[in-house]
Amino acid sequence: MFACLKIRNLPQMMLYSSKLIEEAVHEIATLPGIGKKTALRLALFLLKAKKEHTERLTDVLRTLRAEIQYCCHCHNVADESVCSICNNPHRDRSVICVVESIQDVLAIENTSQYRGLYHVLGGIISPVAGIGPDQLKIDSLVQRVQEVQPQEVIFALSATIEGDTTAFYITKKIKGCAVKASVIARGVAVGGELEYTDELTLGRSIAGRVAYP
Amino acid sequence: MFACLKIRNLPQMMLYSSKLIEEAVHEIATLPGIGKKTALRLALFLLKAKKEHTERLTDVLRTLRAEIQYCCHCHNVADESVCSICNNPHRDRSVICVVESIQDVLAIENTSQYRGLYHVLGGIISPVAGIGPDQLKIDSLVQRVQEVQPQEVIFALSATIEGDTTAFYITKKIKGCAVKASVIARGVAVGGELEYTDELTLGRSIAGRVAYP
Repeated sequence: MFACLKIRNLPQMMLYSSKLIEEAVHEIATLPGIGKKTALRLALFLLKAKKEHTERLTDVLRTLRAEIQYCCHCHNVADESVCSICNNPHRDRSVICVVESIQDVLAIENTSQYRGLYHVLGGIISPVAGIGPDQLKIDSLVQRVQEVQPQEVIFALSATIEGDTTAFYITKKIKGCAVKASVIARGVAVGGELEYTDELTLGRSIAGRVAYP
Repeated sequence: MFACLKIRNLPQMMLYSSKLIEEAVHEIATLPGIGKKTALRLALFLLKAKKEHTERLTDVLRTLRAEIQYCCHCHNVADESVCSICNNPHRDRSVICVVESIQDVLAIENTSQYRGLYHVLGGIISPVAGIGPDQLKIDSLVQRVQEVQPQEVIFALSATIEGDTTAFYITKKIKGCAVKASVIARGVAVGGELEYTDELTLGRSIAGRVAYP
């Protein structure tokens, strides 16, 4: 009985028999979404695998961190000073899609539905998180719009107040340029059932209905 | 309608705008339990974090892989040729707990209920997986038992046929030595409800009942 209680009250601190393992686990567990248990599993996996495996992994991470660049036009990750999307002559240069992060670029690229260019803001205006317009790549977007004069700017930002605020702020800034501003459609997800769709989305979806094709 | 179908039939291959990112994601995704999406998240996290973060992480992993040793007595991970458990003068040298892996040592250590020594087999006998006694540290255990003559050998192996076979094989091998062999108790988990315990465990638990304290 007492033994059980003792076990249950133990602090959530692991004891490692090796200092090397302890340091590795501590360091791996600083990565997002990885706790001490997963970190230990990964460390022991690397120990079991061939030495070259660890060397390859660490080399690749070091090279990534040292050599990565950000595109001077759209601020997407790039291997050179201009990213492969901005460099691609087959992309439609008359459309710029404004997104929050690099992940969003990848998400849109993977739909294969968009052939235009991007602009990565690096976040959205959020007074709660203390992020103002100055910390984002908004000025460079405004300048880019003035210079290249695209036909359309598409806002593909989060469907939140922060996302809407950011889009509103930018449209105000580029009002002078003869550019069409649009926002990606909001509505019921493809494959989603009406019954389980929240009221706000369903409401928006009805208000934003389109002509039957 | 066609657009939807097209999206759904897309291959599950991500397109990366940077070769460096692609290589990093590929390499990180070789780790167990980490898919391409998590790998991308980790790579982008490292890009956002300070350069020193990546350097520290890769240094620690390289050092771990290069400098780790395995204890010459118990085959546990160690920073020197003898692990900190075997080296600890306060441990009870008359008991050896036989476990499958290093993780099991950590699991038992974290109960704070055991003060003896360990012996890591590096697996269990499994004809299905093609693992025979020769691939495990069984010979070194037998030799160790003969040399140090402990009072007790505790089998803390998986409660499976493979675990039982391994324990049976080892007890046969160390029969000549005057050593008590025991196996950790099997029964209802602490905090477990009888209703949800499987029949085999419950049966074992009744058969292996102990006197009320």
